[in-house]
Amino acid sequence: MKITVLSSGSWGTALAKTLCDNNHEVYLWSRSKEYSDAMEAKKENFRYLPGYTLPDNLHLTADFAKAIENADLIVTATPTQYIRQTLEMLKEQNCSAPICNVSKGIEVSSLKRISEITSEILGETHPFCVLVGPSHAEELIKNMPTAVVASSQFTFLAKKVQSLFMNQNFRVYTSSDLVGVELGGALKNIFAIAAGVIDGLGLGDNTKAALMTRGNVEMARLGRALGGFEETFNGLSGIGDLIVTCTSKHSRNRSVGEMLGKGLSMEQIKEKLGHSVAEGVATTKSAYQLAQNHGVETPIIEQCYQVLYENRSPAEAINYLMTRDAKKERN
Amino acid sequence: MKITVLSSGSWGTALAKTLCDNNHEVYLWSRSKEYSDAMEAKKENFRYLPGYTLPDNLHLTADFAKAIENADLIVTATPTQYIRQTLEMLKEQNCSAPICNVSKGIEVSSLKRISEITSEILGETHPFCVLVGPSHAEELIKNMPTAVVASSQFTFLAKKVQSLFMNQNFRVYTSSDLVGVELGGALKNIFAIAAGVIDGLGLGDNTKAALMTRGNVEMARLGRALGGFEETFNGLSGIGDLIVTCTSKHSRNRSVGEMLGKGLSMEQIKEKLGHSVAEGVATTKSAYQLAQNHGVETPIIEQCYQVLYENRSPAEAINYLMTRDAKKERN
Repeated sequence: MKITVLSSGSWGTALAKTLCDNNHEVYLWSRSKEYSDAMEAKKENFRYLPGYTLPDNLHLTADFAKAIENADLIVTATPTQYIRQTLEMLKEQNCSAPICNVSKGIEVSSLKRISEITSEILGETHPFCVLVGPSHAEELIKNMPTAVVASSQFTFLAKKVQSLFMNQNFRVYTSSDLVGVELGGALKNIFAIAAGVIDGLGLGDNTKAALMTRGNVEMARLGRALGGFEETFNGLSGIGDLIVTCTSKHSRNRSVGEMLGKGLSMEQIKEKLGHSVAEGVATTKSAYQLAQNHGVETPIIEQCYQVLYENRSPAEAINYLMTRDAKKERN
Repeated sequence: MKITVLSSGSWGTALAKTLCDNNHEVYLWSRSKEYSDAMEAKKENFRYLPGYTLPDNLHLTADFAKAIENADLIVTATPTQYIRQTLEMLKEQNCSAPICNVSKGIEVSSLKRISEITSEILGETHPFCVLVGPSHAEELIKNMPTAVVASSQFTFLAKKVQSLFMNQNFRVYTSSDLVGVELGGALKNIFAIAAGVIDGLGLGDNTKAALMTRGNVEMARLGRALGGFEETFNGLSGIGDLIVTCTSKHSRNRSVGEMLGKGLSMEQIKEKLGHSVAEGVATTKSAYQLAQNHGVETPIIEQCYQVLYENRSPAEAINYLMTRDAKKERN
């Protein structure tokens, strides 16, 4: 089975390694020929996943046409805001192979999920699947047990992806709720920023657990309004991914929040991080807009939006959330 | 409003302090007069919550009859396996005040929840409520924002408890699903042991997030079979408390798991911890029995049971969980 991974970031590389473990014929494509050759020479993705020797049977290439030729499955692992470009390249090559997308997010300019962008470019009948869940590349590459979910409206494809990827270190569940699975992966980054704020303010585990729990309630509420199923947000792509992102020291989103909690302004943070501010900053704007458009109550997302875009102080935001009217846990 | 807290462990003390902040007349009862007097002299619960000065308006006493006389609410904070004894003492005094229980667990000898024991001793019409959620006493006492849920079949009591406890640092939601709320608080300790095993084996965040997510699915499945609502397990008393217990360095349950993961036997751990092994060890047995009795599929609880009681190795248990048949995320 020939499988092609686009492109060679840390997660794409870790998944390519897993597919090699399962004895598939795996191509890992890089945009830069220079970097692809350097990885080949060192047998290491020294920029994004240093310290790990790439499998002998992994094909490294910067030749896009060769990489995707006769592929049985294309794994798209490019950052969300560049995915449109990758899909246009596939269209130019008349690629008919099923797509398995593994990146997370909502396109800022269009408020679209990646499945929607794919439909728009490759057509509604082009088989499309996502594979997401709580997963640091640095852990999967070391064979630490990881569980994710494959979701598609094409049942055959979700099952195919499950069987191609699954092994004793990588457990894959299937789900037919594509909308819910995609939204969980995207929305969780908002709450990772909020979790960082809690860390930055020096608050504790109680506060963070309450944030994650109530954040998940908001994800589910917004997700249902957008066509997902509530139960999906209690799964690996929802609360599972939320837990990993909110507690990880590596998450860029959590770091942005931590700096906010310590009193830095968004201008100062942008200066510090350069042009690539975390995905969650854009997602907060998209989600806030979507919640307004659909009339959904999302107090935490609203406060995140005000802190990120309207200079509200994090301490005020938390005080507001704690002193709202007394409520039932579920309405 | 006179409120009496039984007894002066760390959580009882933190809640008593919160009630003092809300200007109630609060009595904190201790079994030992000697310890109660020592706390009074030092104005500190130096054994269970050291480093914090007790409020001036908190009444410390070892006189049970005086403590509960004319109380408007009794807060029971004694460990689960001793709660029966406390309730018998209340019965002897003909206490008619509503009970708000804040301890978590299932009575090992009877497989009963605390509400069931209360009904048995004080009668089915005795107003009873629980107040639970992700909450370290050490954080609440420092005014770190904390959110919990008050649940009762007596709606007036859940609302009353909400209004008595709630302030800007302590947010209380209400729920009418008493069974689900009680079970979440009890069952989560099983998964805290499993999370400790993952830490002891040196595995990562991916593995732990997968455990918490799938553990929550099992809690909900078993909880539904026992009469709770699935959605409750996605709330503060379910996934919220699960998150805090699985990630906390302070949890006794997690520590037991960590020692198991590092290769110690239960005999060695019992020797190390003395007679008071963690609550989750007993809960695992109770839950395993309940799952068997009701024919519920709970693979993680089953593996925990085998590790704790049948000498199965933790690595084998994890390998078994990762290599089960391919599944849908929800059935």
